[in-house]
Amino acid sequence: MTSSLIAPRGSVPEIEEGLAFAPRFDAAGLIACVVTDARSGELLMVAHMDAQALERTVQSGEAWFYSRSRKALWKKGETSGHVQTVIEMRVDCDQDVLWLKVEQAGAGACHTGRRSCFYRAVVHTGPGAPLTLEFRDGERVFDPGEVYGGGHPGPT
Amino acid sequence: MTSSLIAPRGSVPEIEEGLAFAPRFDAAGLIACVVTDARSGELLMVAHMDAQALERTVQSGEAWFYSRSRKALWKKGETSGHVQTVIEMRVDCDQDVLWLKVEQAGAGACHTGRRSCFYRAVVHTGPGAPLTLEFRDGERVFDPGEVYGGGHPGPT
Repeated sequence: MTSSLIAPRGSVPEIEEGLAFAPRFDAAGLIACVVTDARSGELLMVAHMDAQALERTVQSGEAWFYSRSRKALWKKGETSGHVQTVIEMRVDCDQDVLWLKVEQAGAGACHTGRRSCFYRAVVHTGPGAPLTLEFRDGERVFDPGEVYGGGHPGPT
Repeated sequence: MTSSLIAPRGSVPEIEEGLAFAPRFDAAGLIACVVTDARSGELLMVAHMDAQALERTVQSGEAWFYSRSRKALWKKGETSGHVQTVIEMRVDCDQDVLWLKVEQAGAGACHTGRRSCFYRAVVHTGPGAPLTLEFRDGERVFDPGEVYGGGHPGPT
């Protein structure tokens, strides 16, 4: 999908050092977005945008994504009210990842009821042993059953 | 690619609330990794791992990735010396993104010579105008020509 907001991909020096916004969408038309809390810097979630989600985000100032599992445009917070107001958007060197610094409305960003989606550490207990998970910052800050009415297909 | 470190994907409750590490690799066998500075929390870069890069990271305690542009396993810092020592690894709710908190050796993580790959903001100057970029935290902290000997194909 093309958009009047976006420049065509140029040379490597143009992409890395230039001032034209020329994001690379993948074969499925998506670009990864890292979302952090603008105040605390905390990593909240990672989601994907297509060109339309990017347009809506820019035009509304609130984060829109594309849900790969639901195959649909998705406004963050449309069900939960946990809207993300975009304070700043950045792009990385090769322009294939976006970074949104947001003001997170409501208690948390994760559909499981946590503040952040990254509530488990990956732990290696010893050579040959499988990796296991350990809850860190895993306390629930809202009740997902109440907020989503019992069913939510997941964030991405 | 399978690995003895990794569990098979289970049900949604197992994936979201369980203690088995069952990451979802995409169709190309890759999983996205957000890398932040363990001390400052700064977002440094986003790269990808295949199962082998994940194994080497876990076994060595230093970050390995898979370069999509070079189609090769890649130890971060193998040329530049800017190795990333992993302090903590986390996984998100649906286990399709990893988060590495690292101790970054050397001046910066970005192959362009900056501390972070996210040195430009995406700016909307008005309705109908294309998005443009603006340098923020864009100062070079090392000379990429000197560190890479004049040629580096990019980070991801």
